[in-house]
Amino acid sequence: MNLLLLRPHDLESSDHAVVTDERCDHVRKILKAAPGDRLRVGMLNGTLGWATIRELTRARLVLELDELVEDPPPPLDVELVLALPRPKFVGRIFQAATAIGVKRIVLAQTARVEKSFWHSSVLEPGAIERHLVLGLEQARDTVLPAVELVRSWRDLIGQLEGRDAGRRLLLAHAEAPAPFPRGPVGPATLLVGPEGGLVEREIGQLTHLGAEPVTLGTRALRVETAVAVLLGRLVPDAEASRQ
Amino acid sequence: MNLLLLRPHDLESSDHAVVTDERCDHVRKILKAAPGDRLRVGMLNGTLGWATIRELTRARLVLELDELVEDPPPPLDVELVLALPRPKFVGRIFQAATAIGVKRIVLAQTARVEKSFWHSSVLEPGAIERHLVLGLEQARDTVLPAVELVRSWRDLIGQLEGRDAGRRLLLAHAEAPAPFPRGPVGPATLLVGPEGGLVEREIGQLTHLGAEPVTLGTRALRVETAVAVLLGRLVPDAEASRQ
Repeated sequence: MNLLLLRPHDLESSDHAVVTDERCDHVRKILKAAPGDRLRVGMLNGTLGWATIRELTRARLVLELDELVEDPPPPLDVELVLALPRPKFVGRIFQAATAIGVKRIVLAQTARVEKSFWHSSVLEPGAIERHLVLGLEQARDTVLPAVELVRSWRDLIGQLEGRDAGRRLLLAHAEAPAPFPRGPVGPATLLVGPEGGLVEREIGQLTHLGAEPVTLGTRALRVETAVAVLLGRLVPDAEASRQ
Repeated sequence: MNLLLLRPHDLESSDHAVVTDERCDHVRKILKAAPGDRLRVGMLNGTLGWATIRELTRARLVLELDELVEDPPPPLDVELVLALPRPKFVGRIFQAATAIGVKRIVLAQTARVEKSFWHSSVLEPGAIERHLVLGLEQARDTVLPAVELVRSWRDLIGQLEGRDAGRRLLLAHAEAPAPFPRGPVGPATLLVGPEGGLVEREIGQLTHLGAEPVTLGTRALRVETAVAVLLGRLVPDAEASRQ
């Protein structure tokens, strides 16, 4: 945790926050912080700054806040559309994509997605938000991504048809003839298929909508690794060299 | 698992293999394969090809092997030197780096590595190899990476001093003035520090040895995500567009 994210209900006044959940233990045991120490804090969907720890026990953390005047880091204008992965990977993927700066994540049904995955508890709103917050805290960001669950392929196609004309549609596909871009591409939607890939018919429908099939090579990567590799290539240097 | 890796002791004859461990269950339940189905197989550190399932129960898998004549995919000539991460991340990092094609991984002590991490069972040779094999099976590779544990910073510096003159030393460092490369750099060693980063003295010693500090930007990423992003940028396109 490189940032403690606060919500309106954590504020006692404009310059004092009181946290009473598992974050107290994290600050004590993982950050090894103590009263008097300074912490990076941010308001969810708001600004960032510093706070001083005034009290810290297992169940209570009192913070005195500086004025929070820093803006969060710029977002990455890439929407991530993923075939619903095996539930045990979903949390990690949310964390990684959020940390890299994605602000919209769509999980979708495709022919090779096991329908039973949709019943997993990792897709409950609370569970999703927990992972998004971990990603924000990792990257010192405050702006929560939107997550959408699209349980039918037809609905996904409908959404993609209606996308902004200026938004490129990149389809990660092992057998594509063109390599995956190595730099920023402007506003984009990145489509990543399931283990085993999309089926031919799906690829056909997507290319008909203007999707560009691009490849990382013949080494099949786990979806969590592939997502990091793909998004990492699209991050602009302007941000990369900001200090 | 996109490839079943066989070892010499799995072979009953030059064209028959018998597997009697947890891989049987994986082939049945995850791959949902049955007798008569064809599987991709490879010999550990050897060639690849196809096999036909002749028998499959929970505890026994009999394969009839074609001639295994395919070479494994080309390696990525990047050595990964990582400050020893929190044990729970080690396995995933091994898997990801192996799948991307790394053939040498060094885990090293740095000032901000907790010494207790070295006692973790994830560093036992059997546990390490299990994760490497998962990475190989994911990427349809057969060549096991070498893993080395370097428990002292001084020993690490000694190793890096003695490296080949043509091998670039890239130091991933959030505050570096230059962006991380976006393409292949030839033979390289990639250094990734611990959570919290390397200390100034360590960075000084490394740059003295010729290390180039390069950055992905101000968004701090988990080491598992950072490793995928960094390595993914160095993968050559020649391989990327191979079919």
